[in-house]
Amino acid sequence: MAKITKRSEDYSQWYLDIVMKAEMADYAPVKGCMVIRPWGYAIWERMQRALDDMFKATGHSNAYFPLLIPQSFLQKEAEHVKGFAPECAVVTRGGDKELEEPLVIRPTSETIIWAMYKKWIQSWRDLPLLYNQWANVVRWEMRTRLFLRTTEFLWQEGHTAHATSEEAVEEAERMLGIYKNFAENWMAIPVLTGRKSEGQKFPGAETTYAIEAMMQDGKSLQAGTSHYLAQNFAKAFDVQFQDKDGKLAYVYATSWGVSTRLVGALVMSHSDDAGLVLPPKLAPVQVVVIPIFKAGADNAAIEMAAIRIAEPFDEDVRVKVDDRDNVSPGWKFNEWELKGVPIRIELGPKDLEKGQAVLVRRDTGEKMFIPQEEITLKVPELLEEMQASLLAQARKRLEESCRPVDSYDAFKKELEEKGGFLYAPWCGSPECETRISDDTKATIRVIPDNAEECPGCMVCGKGPSKRVPFAKAY
Amino acid sequence: MAKITKRSEDYSQWYLDIVMKAEMADYAPVKGCMVIRPWGYAIWERMQRALDDMFKATGHSNAYFPLLIPQSFLQKEAEHVKGFAPECAVVTRGGDKELEEPLVIRPTSETIIWAMYKKWIQSWRDLPLLYNQWANVVRWEMRTRLFLRTTEFLWQEGHTAHATSEEAVEEAERMLGIYKNFAENWMAIPVLTGRKSEGQKFPGAETTYAIEAMMQDGKSLQAGTSHYLAQNFAKAFDVQFQDKDGKLAYVYATSWGVSTRLVGALVMSHSDDAGLVLPPKLAPVQVVVIPIFKAGADNAAIEMAAIRIAEPFDEDVRVKVDDRDNVSPGWKFNEWELKGVPIRIELGPKDLEKGQAVLVRRDTGEKMFIPQEEITLKVPELLEEMQASLLAQARKRLEESCRPVDSYDAFKKELEEKGGFLYAPWCGSPECETRISDDTKATIRVIPDNAEECPGCMVCGKGPSKRVPFAKAY
Repeated sequence: MAKITKRSEDYSQWYLDIVMKAEMADYAPVKGCMVIRPWGYAIWERMQRALDDMFKATGHSNAYFPLLIPQSFLQKEAEHVKGFAPECAVVTRGGDKELEEPLVIRPTSETIIWAMYKKWIQSWRDLPLLYNQWANVVRWEMRTRLFLRTTEFLWQEGHTAHATSEEAVEEAERMLGIYKNFAENWMAIPVLTGRKSEGQKFPGAETTYAIEAMMQDGKSLQAGTSHYLAQNFAKAFDVQFQDKDGKLAYVYATSWGVSTRLVGALVMSHSDDAGLVLPPKLAPVQVVVIPIFKAGADNAAIEMAAIRIAEPFDEDVRVKVDDRDNVSPGWKFNEWELKGVPIRIELGPKDLEKGQAVLVRRDTGEKMFIPQEEITLKVPELLEEMQASLLAQARKRLEESCRPVDSYDAFKKELEEKGGFLYAPWCGSPECETRISDDTKATIRVIPDNAEECPGCMVCGKGPSKRVPFAKAY
Repeated sequence: MAKITKRSEDYSQWYLDIVMKAEMADYAPVKGCMVIRPWGYAIWERMQRALDDMFKATGHSNAYFPLLIPQSFLQKEAEHVKGFAPECAVVTRGGDKELEEPLVIRPTSETIIWAMYKKWIQSWRDLPLLYNQWANVVRWEMRTRLFLRTTEFLWQEGHTAHATSEEAVEEAERMLGIYKNFAENWMAIPVLTGRKSEGQKFPGAETTYAIEAMMQDGKSLQAGTSHYLAQNFAKAFDVQFQDKDGKLAYVYATSWGVSTRLVGALVMSHSDDAGLVLPPKLAPVQVVVIPIFKAGADNAAIEMAAIRIAEPFDEDVRVKVDDRDNVSPGWKFNEWELKGVPIRIELGPKDLEKGQAVLVRRDTGEKMFIPQEEITLKVPELLEEMQASLLAQARKRLEESCRPVDSYDAFKKELEEKGGFLYAPWCGSPECETRISDDTKATIRVIPDNAEECPGCMVCGKGPSKRVPFAKAY
């Protein structure tokens, strides 16, 4: 099995090596597109299931809206078309004929969905509409990277309609909370939350909320966004409802999404130089049992014992017996390590004699000799412990990466040397924000609710300013 | 609530009324495309879950291949391009530039998948590859109908690669068996199975197997297909593997799929003039409990009793309490009848006094007065009984529709008068097959494995011939 590049040598190549060699994804023939291979897709499926349950538990239903959007729809919301038109893939022929109006492949679905909401919403009785869809979208990207930025990607997009502004803001904040909860309790990735600055907002949004995670190389990754759209799309598509007093009013909206980019975030957060490290809750296989066959040993008995170890686990533990006889045990160890399976159980002739098995933790590498009859109890405990330990470790990294910086010189130096989230005073002007990103490539990741008030901006010196986290980002 | 057209008046309008008024789907702004609304999508989600479990239980993994395929890929398999090129939507612009090579939106994914299999398959150790994907596809259709035939639709497509022809044929037949099992035991729709004639095969297949269902109007509906592709795509994409003896050989393939068309089949199979009838296993809501509020009654007590009835059901029974206070009980009865919920439980002040509730079966309309403490036991029994009863009823309809016919005159007469599957002698020639479909619009739906041998074809009189089921089809 080919070795992967070390993080310390080339972080970017290390990431791609893991994605390719753990068979999570591959490059597609069309530039910028990817194929998600079964191991990567199984992780995405687990993410989908967990998120979908959370969406449904908060009253949302799934629906499906069309892939193809008339080009004119995009133009109805001024900011929206400015943001997305340059990234669109355009269908100009269908059924062997030129189309009268070109169709764009959805880069996001606000416009097609609000065209439908116009048909479905008449009265306050029709509100709220709390819909979500799981779908593919296409955005023509120049610089792509497997999972993190691809021309086509998979995502979910929630689109809700409300009678009042308060209700819509509450919804946008609720979904941000769900994303934060999912990132921390499933992905074991702690995040910063807050609003995006004016320059970083979703095209067409009044407010964009985001969760931001810290990768091992000191760069930030936007892992999910939730938008309060005010009445922008309702006005663009003329969606009014009759309120309880019989008056007509425009509907308030939100939209929110996470994508297959989360799989990339997962890789970058926890993995090491031996390959992928998966939090147990999202691992397609949580435990692999490897019988160690030896010439002259009673291999049938070893295999039987391996099967007996795997059997008693209920549906909550995903276990696999790797009984292939055409690769060596060492090869199997490497392969499952590379693929990030949380627990490996080894079982050889000597273990069989002693009535034990060897448990190996993927995250720490710790080896444990456990009596066979204790494994069924030990494994779920260990999985829970590993989930918590990965989160604690990631939280420590996040916290250590958050540092206050006061002068612009110190900011530039810290950014180059260590990266991370640098909390620096900013006056709130787009000019200073642009200058910082032009100079350093760092951007304001979020404006936290409780941002500390400071006297002067680190760039222009003017006040009052707020201390906000800057970082380079994926 | 608007009434739906009667089946006897206009079957086609009856179908569309149910789909639209039960809020299963709606027309999208782009011609031929549809929006799947939450009630329709929830049915599709249940279908997906059941099928996906069956695929995984037979060793398949999910993956995801790109939406966009270079136009030249389609041309590599001669039959395939003939079949699909005229139906393609073509992307000619991306990121504000003309593309060097146009991209087609996948009408099906054989070509892109076999381009990837070329990278992944070298040795017999890499086989079999048993992959499936859940995806959207686009085929430019002229005459569309919600769910049954739409320009964009959702489906699953399995694509497998094997070392031997025998193994691939076995796989294609196994998946046909899974589709038949799913149709009968989940959808309560019995089906005919067999091979398609040469003229009706999938473009690029050696053999196409299909399941065919009988609708209430005497027309057949192809509900799923499974193809043995022989080495056609392996040769087109040069996918060879080294066998155990070190020799190079082309890989054998299958593909198989079912789509959101199944939702249309479900509507057409079981529904009646009051609306949708859903088999319990696929109903998003299986039981709706309706508290009947009356002026002067203790409505809080009625609502509490309704909640107490719903509470004890475990996850296996999907129950909903409809406690809306802005529509009347009668309105609710109609709505849930229209939406096909299998069991309605009514609970009014008098029922409360008597410690009973009224259960109403959606399929038969039967009303039962049941002591409240027996409901938790009664409901699962009743759901099972309804599932079986719907299947039995559909089976009776299928069987009655299957009639032998010997002369071409009788064939034409029977087809016009009653439709159904007419088993008629056919010599096997494409000429007679074409003449029949030109004359009558009926086609050979499948060639059953055990087709009866007959002396002479009903058209040309030549023998030997086989008795095969003809029908008009959706």
